[in-house]
Order: sequence, then structure tokens, then C-alpha cells
Amino acid sequence: MAEFFPNIPRIKYEGPQSDNPLAFKFYNPEEEIAGRKMKDHLRFSMAWWHTLCANGTDMFGVGTVDKSFNTSDPMDLAKAKVEAGFEIMDKTGIEFFAFHDRDIAPEGENLAETNRNLDVIVDLIEAKMKETGKKLLWDTANMFGNPRYMHGAGTSPNADAFAYAAAQAKKAIEIGTRLGAEGYTFWGGREGYDTLLNTNMGLELDNMARLLRMEIEYGRSIGFKGNFYVEPKPKEPTKHQYDFDSATVIGFLRKYGLDMKLNIEANHGTLAGHTFQHELRVARTEGYFGSVDANIGDMLLGWDTDEFPYNVYDTTLAMYEVLKAGGFEKGGLNFDSKTRRPSCGLDDIFHAHIMGMDSFALGLRMADKLIKDGRIDKFVEERYSSYNSGIGKKIVDGTATVQELEEYALAMGDVKTNTSGRQEYLEAVMNQVMFG
Amino acid sequence: MAEFFPNIPRIKYEGPQSDNPLAFKFYNPEEEIAGRKMKDHLRFSMAWWHTLCANGTDMFGVGTVDKSFNTSDPMDLAKAKVEAGFEIMDKTGIEFFAFHDRDIAPEGENLAETNRNLDVIVDLIEAKMKETGKKLLWDTANMFGNPRYMHGAGTSPNADAFAYAAAQAKKAIEIGTRLGAEGYTFWGGREGYDTLLNTNMGLELDNMARLLRMEIEYGRSIGFKGNFYVEPKPKEPTKHQYDFDSATVIGFLRKYGLDMKLNIEANHGTLAGHTFQHELRVARTEGYFGSVDANIGDMLLGWDTDEFPYNVYDTTLAMYEVLKAGGFEKGGLNFDSKTRRPSCGLDDIFHAHIMGMDSFALGLRMADKLIKDGRIDKFVEERYSSYNSGIGKKIVDGTATVQELEEYALAMGDVKTNTSGRQEYLEAVMNQVMFG
Amino acid sequence: MAEFFPNIPRIKYEGPQSDNPLAFKFYNPEEEIAGRKMKDHLRFSMAWWHTLCANGTDMFGVGTVDKSFNTSDPMDLAKAKVEAGFEIMDKTGIEFFAFHDRDIAPEGENLAETNRNLDVIVDLIEAKMKETGKKLLWDTANMFGNPRYMHGAGTSPNADAFAYAAAQAKKAIEIGTRLGAEGYTFWGGREGYDTLLNTNMGLELDNMARLLRMEIEYGRSIGFKGNFYVEPKPKEPTKHQYDFDSATVIGFLRKYGLDMKLNIEANHGTLAGHTFQHELRVARTEGYFGSVDANIGDMLLGWDTDEFPYNVYDTTLAMYEVLKAGGFEKGGLNFDSKTRRPSCGLDDIFHAHIMGMDSFALGLRMADKLIKDGRIDKFVEERYSSYNSGIGKKIVDGTATVQELEEYALAMGDVKTNTSGRQEYLEAVMNQVMFG
Amino acid sequence: MAEFFPNIPRIKYEGPQSDNPLAFKFYNPEEEIAGRKMKDHLRFSMAWWHTLCANGTDMFGVGTVDKSFNTSDPMDLAKAKVEAGFEIMDKTGIEFFAFHDRDIAPEGENLAETNRNLDVIVDLIEAKMKETGKKLLWDTANMFGNPRYMHGAGTSPNADAFAYAAAQAKKAIEIGTRLGAEGYTFWGGREGYDTLLNTNMGLELDNMARLLRMEIEYGRSIGFKGNFYVEPKPKEPTKHQYDFDSATVIGFLRKYGLDMKLNIEANHGTLAGHTFQHELRVARTEGYFGSVDANIGDMLLGWDTDEFPYNVYDTTLAMYEVLKAGGFEKGGLNFDSKTRRPSCGLDDIFHAHIMGMDSFALGLRMADKLIKDGRIDKFVEERYSSYNSGIGKKIVDGTATVQELEEYALAMGDVKTNTSGRQEYLEAVMNQVMFG
Repeated sequence: MAEFFPNIPRIKYEGPQSDNPLAFKFYNPEEEIAGRKMKDHLRFSMAWWHTLCANGTDMFGVGTVDKSFNTSDPMDLAKAKVEAGFEIMDKTGIEFFAFHDRDIAPEGENLAETNRNLDVIVDLIEAKMKETGKKLLWDTANMFGNPRYMHGAGTSPNADAFAYAAAQAKKAIEIGTRLGAEGYTFWGGREGYDTLLNTNMGLELDNMARLLRMEIEYGRSIGFKGNFYVEPKPKEPTKHQYDFDSATVIGFLRKYGLDMKLNIEANHGTLAGHTFQHELRVARTEGYFGSVDANIGDMLLGWDTDEFPYNVYDTTLAMYEVLKAGGFEKGGLNFDSKTRRPSCGLDDIFHAHIMGMDSFALGLRMADKLIKDGRIDKFVEERYSSYNSGIGKKIVDGTATVQELEEYALAMGDVKTNTSGRQEYLEAVMNQVMFG
Repeated sequence: MAEFFPNIPRIKYEGPQSDNPLAFKFYNPEEEIAGRKMKDHLRFSMAWWHTLCANGTDMFGVGTVDKSFNTSDPMDLAKAKVEAGFEIMDKTGIEFFAFHDRDIAPEGENLAETNRNLDVIVDLIEAKMKETGKKLLWDTANMFGNPRYMHGAGTSPNADAFAYAAAQAKKAIEIGTRLGAEGYTFWGGREGYDTLLNTNMGLELDNMARLLRMEIEYGRSIGFKGNFYVEPKPKEPTKHQYDFDSATVIGFLRKYGLDMKLNIEANHGTLAGHTFQHELRVARTEGYFGSVDANIGDMLLGWDTDEFPYNVYDTTLAMYEVLKAGGFEKGGLNFDSKTRRPSCGLDDIFHAHIMGMDSFALGLRMADKLIKDGRIDKFVEERYSSYNSGIGKKIVDGTATVQELEEYALAMGDVKTNTSGRQEYLEAVMNQVMFG
Repeated sequence: MAEFFPNIPRIKYEGPQSDNPLAFKFYNPEEEIAGRKMKDHLRFSMAWWHTLCANGTDMFGVGTVDKSFNTSDPMDLAKAKVEAGFEIMDKTGIEFFAFHDRDIAPEGENLAETNRNLDVIVDLIEAKMKETGKKLLWDTANMFGNPRYMHGAGTSPNADAFAYAAAQAKKAIEIGTRLGAEGYTFWGGREGYDTLLNTNMGLELDNMARLLRMEIEYGRSIGFKGNFYVEPKPKEPTKHQYDFDSATVIGFLRKYGLDMKLNIEANHGTLAGHTFQHELRVARTEGYFGSVDANIGDMLLGWDTDEFPYNVYDTTLAMYEVLKAGGFEKGGLNFDSKTRRPSCGLDDIFHAHIMGMDSFALGLRMADKLIKDGRIDKFVEERYSSYNSGIGKKIVDGTATVQELEEYALAMGDVKTNTSGRQEYLEAVMNQVMFG
Repeated sequence: MAEFFPNIPRIKYEGPQSDNPLAFKFYNPEEEIAGRKMKDHLRFSMAWWHTLCANGTDMFGVGTVDKSFNTSDPMDLAKAKVEAGFEIMDKTGIEFFAFHDRDIAPEGENLAETNRNLDVIVDLIEAKMKETGKKLLWDTANMFGNPRYMHGAGTSPNADAFAYAAAQAKKAIEIGTRLGAEGYTFWGGREGYDTLLNTNMGLELDNMARLLRMEIEYGRSIGFKGNFYVEPKPKEPTKHQYDFDSATVIGFLRKYGLDMKLNIEANHGTLAGHTFQHELRVARTEGYFGSVDANIGDMLLGWDTDEFPYNVYDTTLAMYEVLKAGGFEKGGLNFDSKTRRPSCGLDDIFHAHIMGMDSFALGLRMADKLIKDGRIDKFVEERYSSYNSGIGKKIVDGTATVQELEEYALAMGDVKTNTSGRQEYLEAVMNQVMFG
């Protein structure tokens, strides 16, 4: 078995003072924080597509990194990627991975051949999983890259494309079931529209729900135990995607009665005009918190840059939401992140993952400190305390009438009980906790 | 009774060739289009706040237009505005109006006095309505301007503010009932957050629903016959408003089982990252189409500019959605639009409304032509025709199983039936209809 | 010689009532408007890259249109594209074209071979130009697609990449000279940075100027008679491009004393936060107006969508600026536009160009009407008339001192002479002219 | 002399572990870092407008904080603000302040009276400065708030407004001269346009330069020793401001030969599509670095939120640029920042300044560590080292010809010397330095 990254050792925790670029400074997998090992809190996952497939191609230029793994035959390449992927997981200590069906095996001449290609590689992956103990966080079907989905998959105006998508997702769910995946994700890259001039929105939404329902039912019927996720994204590649953001997707799932959770990607949230924390907060509040695609976008760029997460404010607030949600159950932190195009070395894969893992490790440490510090949580509790008794309690209990509230307000004359929201003070607390 | 705009005549339709700035070029109220008079299609409404109150103040400068109507006494001013407002409606031929409670009467020392002020002015408005036949499209309570609502109204962490808001909305609904309003709107200008650091999102959402439910029930109990609307807006003044966009609000209304419709504002839609047409399409598709706040935003500016609508592409696509929704029932086109700050003359109010009314009149004419032309509708129908028979029909009917679709797909091998989405052709059709 | 588009006839002008999708409705090439034939005003150009090379690939999917032109050999493909391109120009009546060096011929094993490939194809193009009378609006060197330019070309931290870029541009200018190009464009797709953490901005800017200077001097030395252009773009593919917008580029050209003009792309302007008209107005005002990349962006999407221009407001205001600048001299309207990915037919190329040409034809017609109408120009003239005499004239002549202005202001007490900016009225005039 | 903030003690440095909200955790004014006391590096300044005038008013609501300072008389209020301002500076240890003329004294009936009002207050300020040693970082004239400037000041189409502006700036420069200001700032809040339909851009730009030139010359003639600054902002309140960003302003200053520097505001930079660091880097690179308006914007909101700066990444990268520019000479960090509207207590002023000062103190500490760490600077140096010798040196020296570079490139065949840009590694270094 070839070693693809011979210059890269197993990455170890060496602490904040180490000057070894190939060491963790903050991620100490076995260290306990808030009652769990760091690795069990963070449940890092390697994304097959970016890490093993993406080569730096963008809309204005071809690849900069050689990810041919010494072969040009598509099936040999697929096999080499399995080796390379498990080597990366081994060396970084990442315990989970995630893939689209088309990341792991090439399409054949027709669906039958494509499925046979998948079977070959899934055999290999299954063996490696057994050997190494690595686990599948979730898999998914790529129903956006091939021209057959140019108008959508579940939302295609063409019933043939819908049928093909149904078959493709069925196979991907079977693979997930076989590999014991903890989740299965739907990201509808073409489930939207490019122009309303040619679009029947109502039929498309209904059809999308039809596809999801039949796939979920099928998955449960064959014993799939993981979560089903929808991953929100507002736009790109299409002008508008129906899975715009957390709130929109939750509304959709409720309308159609679909039992799914959310896989939230940081960069998708910001493209929708929300912070990463907001998207997580909505999911947590509404009971749809599931898994996370861990990356960061550039707030001044209008497309999905999928950068490795470096911003510890973001990771702290994200891990704060994760801890408040009770931690990941079946979900995890999947690095849907790619090295920048000019990061043209294979070793940049490791630098990037180390950086991303250390950033989330810092986020976990900070979130734990923030909760232990308690000032912010206590402030919030007190801020809403008027609903714990008196007229406030009646409002919450649903026993106050409009007439009673009017009497109360007339007697009051005006509201005299507002106190400061103290945003700047709370930001100071956060900085003190982070840098103190 | 004073005439406040003595230099402005009644605005008449003079047709596209007229060089009279104070004439309609495209809005011919009595002309029939698509089976109704233009005025009955468009149901224009004057917004009390911008037209009678806004004086050009912005965050960097004080007012530029004198809207003191020759008085400095608050109640006299309120009365003068009634006169001025009905004069504007009379001269422009606008048949509806809309107001916040605080637009029409000043706040007093306490809620009781404020309500008495309202009663005085409502008497006056009622009399003018009887005299002129003008109608109230909707009213609303301003629960965002006063410091008592600095943290929200229905979502305030302070139960006193909630109680006050409940009382205020109750009064505003009573006024709407008395004046025979065709609607009542909730726009939650502070129903959101400035920072998640101090926010209990779950409680705030539940409380917002509690407020809406009790007000709606109260309204129905006293005989309010109009629609209840929520008006989406994503942000501004707060960082995040819960009523982000049409999809989010519809999800919220479904979750809490609230029987409301949407009042969609063009500029709010674009701030949320959507086109005006998109917001209308979502509302129509989901069965929540209600009324429209007619304005336009500057797509390069990140705040609510509330410009008078001039873009005939926008008005055409908006009226296309309105016609497809069956036209306005109780809703209408409310000019939530203000003259630019440097448009410092009172006559600019008339120039702006003429321009806005002509723009929507053009939009109606064009939308009607587009539908009569039929090429676009026919294209869409054919585009989805695969769902009318065969495997497509089974998908839509819910009789196709995943297994059957897989068999179908395996037999197909690949999708060979996609045809072009023809966006550029459809855009050409639209231009031909508009400029041909 | 193969015909690649056998189903497409020569596109003729049939007028606004024609229901022939393959006819111009508004573009009548020989019709005279404002003293010139339409075709001489508009000087349409076909973009080799989008029209002959782009196949619908985007970051999330592979091509949807087959532009292999029946061959898989790179040089045969290059030759076929020449045939196809001239067929398109012939059938649409487009008289100009534009290309990057790498659009017309494939790279070889090394620079020498690449240049030989170019020579072969340039021979072919030259022959076709002689045969057909078609002209080269401008050519350019693609110094962004190849990994060698991953860090920039003129701004690369690697002197080897700079040297290579210098050689590549030299060759492209020689080709332009040989083909009698009316211009040569520099678009610096990688001339910027991805992170300031690794960037020496001062050296990069100086080097970019060094490259431009040596290429311009070389071009003039070998008899190149066309304009040299810089094409502004703010970002994408990089995080920040030095050629951010018109104002920035003009500042750069002045600093380094470079004799160049601007090639302004609509979609690049909007990505920089400006309207298309703004970018043209700046160029015209500062004396740097050159040529135009005609397309449109989606104002709600944050990347370069390069859509075919359909919006007649935009084309009207653009052609207004062009007419005010005295019309194109050596520049033209180059369709840097691509059919949408789901527009997967080769005939969509024709639908899209027809639509784009008709949109600009409408723009020209409307701009001419607007100028003939005269109301807007007259309004502007009067608005600034206070600078034609008195204190205003002294200000403009530079004879007023601060002390004198203070005395004048003290005597005035306050400004009492402001009049309305009349934005809404002017927008009404524009709509009347466009739709009347 | 009244104490306006009796509950606020002098804020002292108590270190990162202190739980005293009214203490500095990171700002230790007398501590030496990089060869200077922290206070001399940071040169904090209090902004009169936000701190003493802004009361929480926004476009949707009236004030939430009482800044009447126990009086309703305008001149008494102006005097009280002087007392309050110096109390704030005293208690926070801020050594500089900045104001618009209209912040410190109310307008009178006419310019003469307004100037007399100014004289009264300037007397007071001068006395307080002598007494306390506090210094004026810069002053400016508010030439955007009054309706007289609704169309601009230097760019007004009305020569009377220009004359008035000239007189107003003259007076403000005289005040700055008298108070020994270290700078004078021009921020052109209305120097732009709302619509190009009514705008003569060329005349406006020329006039703006005329105004600046005459004011600078006058200032120097009366002995003003400070810097003259332009403060870039792209938009808001107008649709487009001519002083769009650093690059644009520098181009303008060069064109008109104006000897000025930049006052860079973080939030204005982000509104223009740039990072704060970018704007500082451009100014530093081009030799126009002057002073800083220290705040932060919300990257998801499209208006100037002017939040107190809390983000230590931003402050670190900003202070890195400041240190690399050699530190502030006459400039400083002016808190052009306002407490959030719901931060309705007067004590929030102190919490906010403490937070902002601590954030920049952290930024200074981190920037110093980053420079001392040296890894990033060394990486950059090596990255460009190919320009230190060989062909690279000839390029930089201007001795390489295009022909020579072509020969070099032909011999090379292709570029084989590119190395990774290492963005992720550099981000890891930054996190290690910040959190290690």
C-alpha cells in the first residue's frame, strides 16, 4: 500500500508554544472538556470532495494541485483516493468522513454500470473502515453536477430526471445503510430556479417533498438508522435555491411533515444574510439541530468560498450553540472546506486541517469557558425574568386576555421598566473570556 | 377648509404624448383591462407616514420639506394632515389609504390620553371617508418608534412592553373595525435582535405568536372583517427580524396555526436577497398572497430606501403575479414610498405619486399583454408536461415507488430528454411585449 | 467548409411585430439614428471565449452544451472554432470579435510550441477576415487560467511568472498588430490578492505598472495603432483585484503615467457597487472612455454571471453615456456574455445574441429619444446655472477667495435658493420617453 | 461644576482576571510596547457627536438615552456637553477628542450668530484643554446635516451653498488652528449624487477640489499645522459619494495635486467592499496614511452601524498596519462609534469605551507579538525574493526589455518555480500568536 503523504507524520498535540507547523496547538483529542473528550465533542469529518477531489480549479483557471494519485484510470483513481483518504484521516486523527456518491466512484456508461463502480469502491471503504475504526458521518448523492440535472433533480421539469434522481438517492441510501452511516444529507444544488419566467414553483416544491418522502421511507424500510438532513443554501449555482436557510427549510419540512434535521454550513448561512450562529440558533430553537459543515466564507465575497475555518469568534459561538443543544448526537463537524487555489501543495491539506481543527478546538475551549463564566447566560436569564411571574407569567401561560393587558397598560400609563441590552458589555465579557 | 396644495389640479389621464407633468400618461382609471377597471385592479393606497409625516430627515440630516401644514400644535397638525391627506387622495384619484396609529395622532402623557387623541382624529377621518368614499386599505400600530419598544414589542424581554403592545394593537384593531378597514398589518420593526448574546430566541418567537393570536381573536370577536397581514422584513432597524421573508413568515404562521396573509413590500424582499416577484410568487404559491407595499429599493444600497417605483420590469412582473393570483381581493398597492430628500417641494409628492401610479399602470398593461401573448405561459406548461402522463403522472399522483423509479432509470440508462430552459428567448419575448 | 448551425438562417430585421424568434425586432443595422447607422453606433462584437468555448460548466457541474464541433483534436477544434465563429458573425451580422490568445489556440508543451499553434490559427483568422470584412475589436492574453499565474502575472511574487507573462502579452500584441485590432485589453484576473497576510502590495502595484508600460511601448514600437485598455473588476477569482473599478484604475493610470483607456464591463461595475452607467460616466468625465463589455449581472448574486443584457433601462442609460461621449471611436459593444447553463442548445447562442442586440438597439433608440426630448439635459443645465455668473462664476474661474465667500455667506445669512432635485419627475420623463 | 456620571470612577487597568466591569483588562496606558507607551501608540480620541450628542435615534425610532444633561436651552446644553465630555475623557483616560462644528454649538438665526455661538463654546473648550492637557485630534465642519446642503456642499449645484460651505469650513479651520488641532477632516456626506439623471459629475468633482484647495491654502496661511484629511465613504446618506474608498480618494488627490492624508474609518471601508486592513494597507502603500476612525460595521448589514470595535482580529491587523506605517504621527484612533440603541444607560458609554479601548489594546499587543514572532514577515520577504536578483532584479530596476523577457520565457518553456501561498498556514500562525 502506497503512502501518498510520506513527508507528513501523525499530527500530535504539542500545545500552544510549539513551533512545529505539523502539530496541533489547541486540539488535544483525549483531553476532557465539559464532560467529554474533545474528539467526542468535535467529531471531525473529512470531506471526500474537497480533500480528495478538488484540485484548485475555479471559473477562471484550471487545477493547481496534482490529485491524480499517480494514475489516470478512473477506477484506479477512485481506489487510490480511498487509500489517500484513510491516510489523511489516520495522520490527522479525524474519525469521520463524508462523501457524495460521485466523489468515490466514476460514472459509467449507464446507471447500472455506475452502480457497479460504486459497489467496488464501497467494498474497499467498508474494509478500510473495519480495519481502522473510522466512521461515515453521512453520505449523499450528487444530483447537481451532471447535465441530466441541469434543471434540477427532485424539482426538474423533466420526470425522467426525477426518476433518475430517485434511483440515485436510493442507491446512496443503501450505501449509507451498509456502511452504518450516522446520517444522509440532501443538498439540492439545482433545486431552485434560474429564472421565474420558466418556472412552476408550486409543482417543483411538491415534487421535492415527494422525492424526500419516498427516500426517507425507503431508507427506514431497509434499516437506515442515521439522521436524514437537509442542507440549506440560498443560491449558487442557481439564482435561487428552495432550501434558502434554516428557517425556510424548517417551514418546508413542517408543511410536508418530513422527519429530517438540518446540516448547517457556515458559508451557506452567511450567503443567506445570516451569521453561522444564527443558523445554529434557529435549528436549536426549533428542534432541528443536526450536523455542521464547518467552513467560513469571506463576508465581502458573494459566493461559496468554503474556506477552512480560522475565526475563533465564529467557532466559539458555534460551539456555544452546539453545547447548548446538548452536543452532537449523530452529527459532527464536517470540513466542507477547501484549500485556497494558490495553496498548491499536498501538504497544504494538512496545514489547513490542522488550522481548522485547532480553530474549533479553541472554539470548544472558549465556549466551555463562556458557559462556566456564566455572566452571559445569567444576564439573559435575568433579562427575561419578567415572564416568570405576574403579568408576564400570565402571558406565557396563555391566561392573559387582551382586555386584561389593556387594563394593565392603562394603569401603567407607560413602560418604565426597560433596562439596557448591554451589548457592548457582553462583547467585553466575551473578549475577556477569549483573551484573558 | 384650507387647500394645502393650491397649485395642484386634479390629475387627469392625458395619454403618453402629453407634456403636462401633472397628468397621467399611462394610468387611465376607468379604462378596462383584463375585465376590470384599472383602478379596481390597482387599488392604490396613500401611506400616511411617508406622504403626510416624512419630511426628508435621514440619519445624517434634518428635514428638507415643510410638512407643518401651518401649525405647531400636535393635535392641530394631526387634523391638518387629515385635510391634506384627503386633498391628496382627491387630486390624485387614490381611493385607499393606510396608517400607523401614531401617524394620525400624537401620543399623550399616558396611554389613556393617547387613545383619546386617536378618537378625536378617527372621528374626523370617519367623517371624511363618508364624505368622499375613500377607504382604509389597512391600519397598523406603530410598535417600534417609541423607546418603550427598544427591545421589541411582542418579543420584548420586558413583559410590561408586551402588555403595552397588546393594548396598543387592540386599540388599532378597534379603529380598523370602526373605519371598515380591509386589512390590519403587523410589521415588527423591533421584533428581532441586535445581538444573540442577550437573546432568548425561543421565548421571543412564542411570545410573538401569542400576541398575534390574541389580537386576531379579539379582532374577530368585535367584528373585524378585513385580512390580518404580516409584513416580512429581514433587518433594519434591528440586525435580524424574525419576519425575514415570505417563506420564513409562512413557516411561522403554519407552525403557530395563525390565519393571516402577507403584506409584501418590494424593498423588503430585495433586502432579504429576493426579487419582488419572488416574494409574490412564494406568497401566491403557498396561498398567502394578500397585499403589497409598492416601492422599489436601490439594489446597490443596503437599507430600505423606499423609493417610488419607477421600474416597469418590476411592476410588470409584480402585476403578472397579482393577475395570476386572481387579482387583489382585500389588498391593494400601498405606496410605502417617500420622495427623495432633495425632492424638497410639496409638489414632488404629486410628481412622485403620478410616476408611481403610471409605473404600475404600465405594469398592469404589460402583464395583461404578456398573458394575452401567451408564449411564456405556454412555454412553462409544455416544460412540465412530462408530469401529465406516464411515469411523471405516477410521481405526481404518489403511486410511483422508489423501486419502480429505479427500474425505470436503469432501463433508461441516462436522461436523454432534457431540453433548453430558453431563458434568453423568454427575456426577448418579454422585451418584445414591453417595447413592441 | 462545414456549416455548424444549419438550422439558423441569416438573422434579419423584421420589426417589433414579427413573431419569428430568429429575427431582429429592434436592431435594424442600416437604419440611421443620430447621424449614423445603427451598426456603426453599436459596433457589436462576438466574444470568442463564451460563444465558442464556454460549454455551461460551473463550479458545481460539467458542461451542458456540446461545443466540440465534431472533433477532439485540440488544433482541429481551434480551426473549427474559427469556422463556427465566422458563421455566427455572418448569420447575426456582428462585425467585430474579441479573443484571448488561449481561446483561439491550445497551449503546447512549451511557450515556443504554444506560439506556433497561435500562428497557425492566426493565419486562418486573417484569411477569414479578409474574406468577410469582419474586424478584431481587441485581443488579449489570458494570464489567469494557467496554474503558472496562480499568484498573479504582472503581480506575481515569482519573477519567472512575470517574465512569462511579458512574453505572452508581447505575442498577443503582435497578433493584434497583424490583424489590425482596434484595441488590446488587459484584464488582470489574478492581479490582486487572496490574503494580505502574504502580500507585498507596493511591489505588486509597481510591477503591474512596469508590465503595462513595457508592453505599451513595445506595441507602439511595432506599429500597433489600437487603444490599450484596462478592464476594471473588483474581485473574483481573487479576493481583491487591484483594478477595482473605473475610478481606481484611472488613479492608477495617472499615478504611473500610462496612456490607456478603459474597457468597462457592466457586471464588473455592479460587483464593485456601482451602476453600469456610473462606471461609464466616470470614464467619460475623466476622459478615459474606451470600449464596453456588454452584459448584465444579477444584482442579487455576488459573482460575475455574465448574462446577456436584457434590461433596456441599463442599455438606454449606457447608450446615453456613449452618445454623450461622442460615440465609440475604436471601441464597441463586446458581448462578454454567456448563455445560462440550462440554455443547452446551440441555437440558444443565436437567441441570446438576438436578444442582446435588440436590447442595445432599443437602448440606442431610447437614448436618442431622451436626448432629442431634451427635458433631462435642460434640467441639468439649469440646475447648475448659478455657476454661470456672479459668485458661482468666480468660484469656477478660481478668482473667489475664502474670505470673499465668507463675506458673501455672512451677507446671505443662510442659503435660500435651493430647489428640488426632482428625481421622481425625471424618472417619470424617462418612463414616458421609453414607453410613450 | 456638576459631575454628570457620579457612579463612574476613574477607569483603571486591573488586568485580564479582574471581574470589575469598570476596569481595563488589557489597556494599560503607561505600559511600554514596541518602544512606546500604549497610550502613545493608540492615541484614543472621543467623538463628540456620538458620545455627547447621539441619543439612540434611528430611522424607525426616537432616542432612548437622555443626553439633555439637565437643560433644554441649546447654549446651556452645549456648555454642559463640554463639561460632560471632559469628565468622560478624564474618567476613561482618553487624551484626544474630535468634533464637528455643529456638535459643539447650535446654529443661530444666521451664519454670524452661529459663529458667535461657536466662539463662546470654543473659549470654554480652550480653557478646559489648558486645565486638563487633553488635545484636539481633529475638528471638521458638518456640511451635510442642514437642508442647505441637501444637494451637496462643495458639490452643490447651487453656488450659494458652495459659498456657505466655504465660509463654514473657514471658521472651523480657524477654530482648529486656535485649539492646536493635530488635524482637520473633510467628510463629504452629501458630496455625491442621488441620481445621475440630474448630475453634472465633472463640474462637481472640479468644484470639490476647488473648495479643498482654497481651504487648505487658507489654513496654512493662518498657521494651521495639523494634517488635512479626507475621510472616504462609498455611500450613505447619498447613493454614491465621490470619496468612495482609499484608492479613489488618493486618485482624486493626485489628480488635483492636493496635499492631504486619509482618515480611514473601518465601517466605511467595509461598506465599500474592503476590509479595514485593506484600506489601511492602501493608504500606507501609497503614502497617504493619516488617522483612523475606530469602529466596526456589521458585515451583514448594508449601512454604517458605527459599532464600538470588539473584533480583535480586526484590531490586530489594523495595528499591524499602523506599526508598519511607523505609528501615528498626528493621527490617532477616534471612536467614531456609538452605543447600540438598546444600550440605553449613560453607563453604557463607559462600558463601550472600555470595550473598544481594550480591543485596540489587545490589537496592539497582538500586532507587536506578530511582528516579533516574525514568521509572517519572513514568509512575505522570501515569497518575493526572486526580485532581489537575476531577471527579477532587472524587472524591478527597469532594465529588462520585453524581448529579453521573451527570450528568458522561451528558454524556460514554462514556469516551474511557483510555491504555495500558504494562506491556511499563515492563518494558523496568526491564531497561535493570538491565542497561544
